[in-house]
Amino acid sequence: MKLLKVALVQQMNSPDVESNILKLEKNICACASQGAQLIVLQELHNSSYFCLTENTDHFNLAETIPGPSVERFGRLAKALEVVIVLSLFEKRASGLYHNTAVVLEKDGTMAGKYRKMHIPDDPEYFEKFYFTPGDLGFHPIDTSVGKLGVMVCWDQWFPEAARLMALHGAELLIYPTAIGWTPSDSPEEKTRQKAAWMISQRAHAVANGLPVVAVNRVGYESDSTAKASGIAFWGSSFVAGPQGELLAEASADQEACLIVDLDMERSEEVRRWWPFFRDRRIDAFDDLLLRFVD
Amino acid sequence: MKLLKVALVQQMNSPDVESNILKLEKNICACASQGAQLIVLQELHNSSYFCLTENTDHFNLAETIPGPSVERFGRLAKALEVVIVLSLFEKRASGLYHNTAVVLEKDGTMAGKYRKMHIPDDPEYFEKFYFTPGDLGFHPIDTSVGKLGVMVCWDQWFPEAARLMALHGAELLIYPTAIGWTPSDSPEEKTRQKAAWMISQRAHAVANGLPVVAVNRVGYESDSTAKASGIAFWGSSFVAGPQGELLAEASADQEACLIVDLDMERSEEVRRWWPFFRDRRIDAFDDLLLRFVD
Repeated sequence: MKLLKVALVQQMNSPDVESNILKLEKNICACASQGAQLIVLQELHNSSYFCLTENTDHFNLAETIPGPSVERFGRLAKALEVVIVLSLFEKRASGLYHNTAVVLEKDGTMAGKYRKMHIPDDPEYFEKFYFTPGDLGFHPIDTSVGKLGVMVCWDQWFPEAARLMALHGAELLIYPTAIGWTPSDSPEEKTRQKAAWMISQRAHAVANGLPVVAVNRVGYESDSTAKASGIAFWGSSFVAGPQGELLAEASADQEACLIVDLDMERSEEVRRWWPFFRDRRIDAFDDLLLRFVD
Repeated sequence: MKLLKVALVQQMNSPDVESNILKLEKNICACASQGAQLIVLQELHNSSYFCLTENTDHFNLAETIPGPSVERFGRLAKALEVVIVLSLFEKRASGLYHNTAVVLEKDGTMAGKYRKMHIPDDPEYFEKFYFTPGDLGFHPIDTSVGKLGVMVCWDQWFPEAARLMALHGAELLIYPTAIGWTPSDSPEEKTRQKAAWMISQRAHAVANGLPVVAVNRVGYESDSTAKASGIAFWGSSFVAGPQGELLAEASADQEACLIVDLDMERSEEVRRWWPFFRDRRIDAFDDLLLRFVD
């Protein structure tokens, strides 16, 4: 067994960025003190989830990469000798922004970045207003703890994305995310949504023989300026093994630091039993590149 | 709501083909009498699961399509005015066999066929010995009850296959299957395997906003001629709605006729909320056509 100690930091965020970052730093330190080697933060962890409305003022939250967050968390990564997965609002140029994950090596340098490829847009998740779809493709980021297939939130619904990361050699799939319920959803609808979210990602583990780490924010957030009804982020950050088996799951309504030992040699074993990569009918997959066949 | 009454026939089979077929006919009649419009049978429903060993005598079980089973079940489909999904061992030519699903229209004619594209091969599932991989691609079969995305067993582990059926306009994904445990599997391993099988297919429902019907055989089968330890097929045939929600599930160790009302208009609604087809990054999917990227 080659164990990797992974930590998931699930937080309630406030509109006050500095206090969110201070809490993240405190949690990162706590995880590192428990031996975590890889620490994954939730999507857009520095701020509240500002996509509840379309508001040009929110572009002030964006920053360059590298920039202040990469520097600040980089210092912490180096001090604690941990790999950290950040999720930032990237300003690339005036009028050009991305939803970008950054992986920091344990020496504090940037190991790589991933720009969210699939951008959602539905009421209170107005992400197409803020984020240009990523242009870096689906490439794992090579680190001292393995090749990390880092994607972001809406990507988690697309089996193609997970498959591409696996085909490119990912050893672990990682999804920082921000997903929740609107108050108007019925209890049955809420149950269906959260279950769908979880089985989709666990199924990526199965299909690719890889462990999956998903880190979601938690708690209710609203936008005081708007008619938005707000989102109750459902937490439930989790880790699944390469057969999709649930290894750990955080609370649906409380903050949590989840620490899990992942056996990184298990994929080799699982893929010998379930050799899906042997049998993919790539000769018949051409139409996957089409929008629809009509 | 546009309801479709679907029936799943989950059987224990014996080596005696005629008695298996008689039981199938009896079950089909029972389902039709309860109003079923679409009846789905398990994989290779006429015989025992002969792939436990590699034995050229088993090729005697194969038949042409059209042939005896299409004719016999066709008469029943016409008499009962039901659509039936068969799963047959197809003899296409000497030395050329397929694992083929056939859809019979309610007038008894053949609506279409699908040749299993992904062929497994592992101890006691020696399918690569018997079946040439299908050459008909992933095309839904048009029927009076909708466009049926019929695949077979091992296909269920490949998200690409489900996606292609959806892109080609399938309204329902259907998997006749034969999967079970070997006696040597630990209880934990058994749990992981069955859960993985179920979440993978439920995730196809989610990813494509389509209902899924999976029909598995049940009961223990061995091969008296061989050292094979046999397979305990785990039944648990199920129906999931287009959010992956489990609508019905059969017993893991008993025969069952499961009858479920599927709302065929629900997909329209679900795909409006979860418009994955809108956002697929087809500009970045080229590498899905590769075996691996190295």
